Amino acid sequence: MGVIIRLSSLSLTTIFTTTTAASTSASFRTPSPLFTRLPLRRLSAAKLSTAVATEEIEERREKKAGVIAPRSQDFNGWYLDVIANAELADYGPVRGTMVIRPYGYAIWEAIQDYLNVKFKETGHSNMYFPQLIPYSFIEKEASHVEGFSPELAVVTIGGGKELEEKLVVRPTSETIVNHMFTQWIQSYRDLPLMINQWVNVTRWEMRTKPFVRTLEFLWQEGHTAHASPEEAEKEALQMIDIYTKFAYEQAAIPVIVGRKSKVETFAGAAKTYTIEAMMGDRKALQAGTSHNLGQNFSRAFGTQFADENGQREHVWQTSWAISTRFVGGIIMTHGDDAGLMLPPKLAPIQVIIIPIWKKTDEKTGVLAAALSVKESLHTAGIRVKIDDSDQKTPGWKFNFWEMKGIPLRIEIGPRDVSSESVVISRRDVPGKQGKVFGVSMESSTLVAYIKDKLDEIQLALLSTAVSFRDSNIVDVTSYDELKEAISQGKWARGPWSASDEDELKVKEETGATIRCFPFEQPNEKGNCLMSGNPADEVAIFAKSY
Amino acid sequence: MGVIIRLSSLSLTTIFTTTTAASTSASFRTPSPLFTRLPLRRLSAAKLSTAVATEEIEERREKKAGVIAPRSQDFNGWYLDVIANAELADYGPVRGTMVIRPYGYAIWEAIQDYLNVKFKETGHSNMYFPQLIPYSFIEKEASHVEGFSPELAVVTIGGGKELEEKLVVRPTSETIVNHMFTQWIQSYRDLPLMINQWVNVTRWEMRTKPFVRTLEFLWQEGHTAHASPEEAEKEALQMIDIYTKFAYEQAAIPVIVGRKSKVETFAGAAKTYTIEAMMGDRKALQAGTSHNLGQNFSRAFGTQFADENGQREHVWQTSWAISTRFVGGIIMTHGDDAGLMLPPKLAPIQVIIIPIWKKTDEKTGVLAAALSVKESLHTAGIRVKIDDSDQKTPGWKFNFWEMKGIPLRIEIGPRDVSSESVVISRRDVPGKQGKVFGVSMESSTLVAYIKDKLDEIQLALLSTAVSFRDSNIVDVTSYDELKEAISQGKWARGPWSASDEDELKVKEETGATIRCFPFEQPNEKGNCLMSGNPADEVAIFAKSY
Repeated sequence: MGVIIRLSSLSLTTIFTTTTAASTSASFRTPSPLFTRLPLRRLSAAKLSTAVATEEIEERREKKAGVIAPRSQDFNGWYLDVIANAELADYGPVRGTMVIRPYGYAIWEAIQDYLNVKFKETGHSNMYFPQLIPYSFIEKEASHVEGFSPELAVVTIGGGKELEEKLVVRPTSETIVNHMFTQWIQSYRDLPLMINQWVNVTRWEMRTKPFVRTLEFLWQEGHTAHASPEEAEKEALQMIDIYTKFAYEQAAIPVIVGRKSKVETFAGAAKTYTIEAMMGDRKALQAGTSHNLGQNFSRAFGTQFADENGQREHVWQTSWAISTRFVGGIIMTHGDDAGLMLPPKLAPIQVIIIPIWKKTDEKTGVLAAALSVKESLHTAGIRVKIDDSDQKTPGWKFNFWEMKGIPLRIEIGPRDVSSESVVISRRDVPGKQGKVFGVSMESSTLVAYIKDKLDEIQLALLSTAVSFRDSNIVDVTSYDELKEAISQGKWARGPWSASDEDELKVKEETGATIRCFPFEQPNEKGNCLMSGNPADEVAIFAKSY
Repeated sequence: MGVIIRLSSLSLTTIFTTTTAASTSASFRTPSPLFTRLPLRRLSAAKLSTAVATEEIEERREKKAGVIAPRSQDFNGWYLDVIANAELADYGPVRGTMVIRPYGYAIWEAIQDYLNVKFKETGHSNMYFPQLIPYSFIEKEASHVEGFSPELAVVTIGGGKELEEKLVVRPTSETIVNHMFTQWIQSYRDLPLMINQWVNVTRWEMRTKPFVRTLEFLWQEGHTAHASPEEAEKEALQMIDIYTKFAYEQAAIPVIVGRKSKVETFAGAAKTYTIEAMMGDRKALQAGTSHNLGQNFSRAFGTQFADENGQREHVWQTSWAISTRFVGGIIMTHGDDAGLMLPPKLAPIQVIIIPIWKKTDEKTGVLAAALSVKESLHTAGIRVKIDDSDQKTPGWKFNFWEMKGIPLRIEIGPRDVSSESVVISRRDVPGKQGKVFGVSMESSTLVAYIKDKLDEIQLALLSTAVSFRDSNIVDVTSYDELKEAISQGKWARGPWSASDEDELKVKEETGATIRCFPFEQPNEKGNCLMSGNPADEVAIFAKSY
């Protein structure tokens, strides 16, 4: 348990390079190309290992088709089963890579659509930097080399020839961004320079897990340059605030926003801000970060501007990122034994309509009603789909679309057609309690009802997650209490003003790290749980992904 | 002149791997990292070469700042100057790579926004495949190896270690797509499988040029699998039709749509469809392709499905792509000596407002009026910007925004404020002819006027391009006439039923290739211009990018 890969996390990489404490029983590994012809999609990926023989895989597949491990007993197995069964992602042929399938990608598109608007509203422009970076660039910023050289993918051959200088496949873009900023920025009139890019990045991670940590992942990385440290600080805070609002309002994930400890801050940055989410197994997921980079990269790359008096100064910078890891956070926050549960605002399909008929003469009327309901909802901007296949029973369809996490289900049978009403079931409230009969089919009534319900579900998911989070954060006043809380799998919150060494000791002894000093602080902080000295702040400790 | 890099173009690569006939005087080369600290952005990139000494570059930069080479005299120099001055793109630190700057990227985003909707309307889902592909995959399809091995970027080191199997950085994704399709497709119920991805691809091109041919570029690649050859053919045609409509209606580029000759078709495909655009220098630009792949990749990767009778068959496939090359096509179709000229539908800014004042007491009224006009237009969904900086004169601003290709300019001075009217100038009609005085500021009147004008400009750009195209296509009936037309820099259209050898001979002797057999054919084809035998079709020959 608690294999520590690296002590200090760096730059944007902090999203992906924290400890892998509490290692899971299975890892995200693809079978070797020899086995790749097997139809793996319905296999419980949880138990999949390169060591398993072909026959055994086939056998397991047959047995496990459609089965999802119980969430409470095997969280990791459950997670991988949900990803496989809901067809969110699949294993790429290269170890640790992931194919994001249409349903998973649609969640990422919903994340993009929201954030992209917010970034533009706050004055950022999208652009594109090349992904191949000269190796020498990486070496210019001391902590950057230290942080990234162990996990680089390196291109050494191009066009059939050995390259004179090795090229790094972008693990993050601070270096190439600063290389270009140095050329574009002359005077204060060129500032602030605020850009963003939606791209793929590659990091040679050894322990991978779909969405959470993959060899290649998708993200946005924002990069800004400013004429003063105050402006950079304001920008870094603005962006973590956008991430926080996104998490609460769109993803229904009640993240805790705060500042990283010095140990966990990118070595060169003035400050790193983070949003930390509690997953269903109570491990923390760092879901987004925003860095005030100070002048670190501008000094390394000579990025200067002439101020109003003609004095040359290095620019102050920020960078900030959210990645496809966030999709993993959504799965692990809201899912249950039945599978995925998606917050309505990000759900690719918000309403699934299941027409039900027994006799052929019932079919026409039921399908016509279903289609008319679909049209009403679609016109009102609701994302809706009909499952009218006659290959599967209604019961199978109920389970299937529950597993896919669709917030609302509408059932329409022959009796509903006669009474011009429908039956509506909530994904987040199981069984009869979540079922309402006799909702009018009349377009405006139904649309209003569905919109209300979707809002209600959005809030209910957040509320459930808040309760879960709050019941699993323990206020501690001593190291013993902290250890006790962590050993119970909870988060510990307590006053902290001890040394970096003490922080590392906690990590070694408990597997937990300081996730952040939350922005929201109690009035009375008390004395440091470790040193006993007065503390200015409480910190949150937890095991994390 | 006319260095032939490869005879047969392959797959999606045909967009980027046709001949580099009629090589230009300068190539798209970045200075070595030693020089990269220079502020190159205003430098005429046309003459930039690694051989130029630092001092000379600096000197040229000073002289050439803001100057654009005359289009008619130095088309390539003009093209590179426009890209540099309009800040569409810049050189990346690695030879042949390109940084797409916000203004250039915004054009690409407009292309994406349009096509993405069309792809989804026609039933395609976006997803993401890893960019690292095992080298062995590339070798599975014979023509694929032949086509791509010379231009691969290869990752040999990962996580500090030499890799057991070399990994290719995606040059195109047919191989990895088929590897996954083989796992996902079991029966006819899984078909058609229709997906798309918006990604970066890497090809080690030796002769590069911003947007037109770069080491790394952005594109969408669609991949579909079908249960019958008819369906695949229908899909390939549907997608080339979407590209054609996009080119005409959005980009105002009157492409000629047709089928590639056997020599120019992807070796494994049944058919390759293409849209060919005539650039301002009359060279052809292959602007998009759609391939009916037949069963070539499905046989190489064993992608089979069980049909309704349980018989296993290989799927029929298509792939189709449009890339950032298209941005180059827009520049080279519509630009003029003053710089860029953007079709309103794709212009990131459709209207630029220039407030004009001399005395300080005029400023307030003029700016208030400008802001109010901006609000009216913005609310009506028109992309509008005010240039209210007091660093530059109105004259400078006129030139600057003309150079940036903004379709319409609104001038507002003190007299306009009094008369509650504005002056409007068209980018596409130079001087007084394109200028209208006294257009009412009243919101609904102005909005209607601007919308009309934008539509008019959109059509005018297309109409100009159609005239230019048609006046530069010569109908030929003999090889001598063909040679004469090509030597004049024109396109030659004539009946063709000769051999592949004859086609290659034309290429060697004239630098021109068959761009396509256009869908639109004359009633009477006549005899083959080369062999004299009866011809079923006319072909179009041209030099190309």
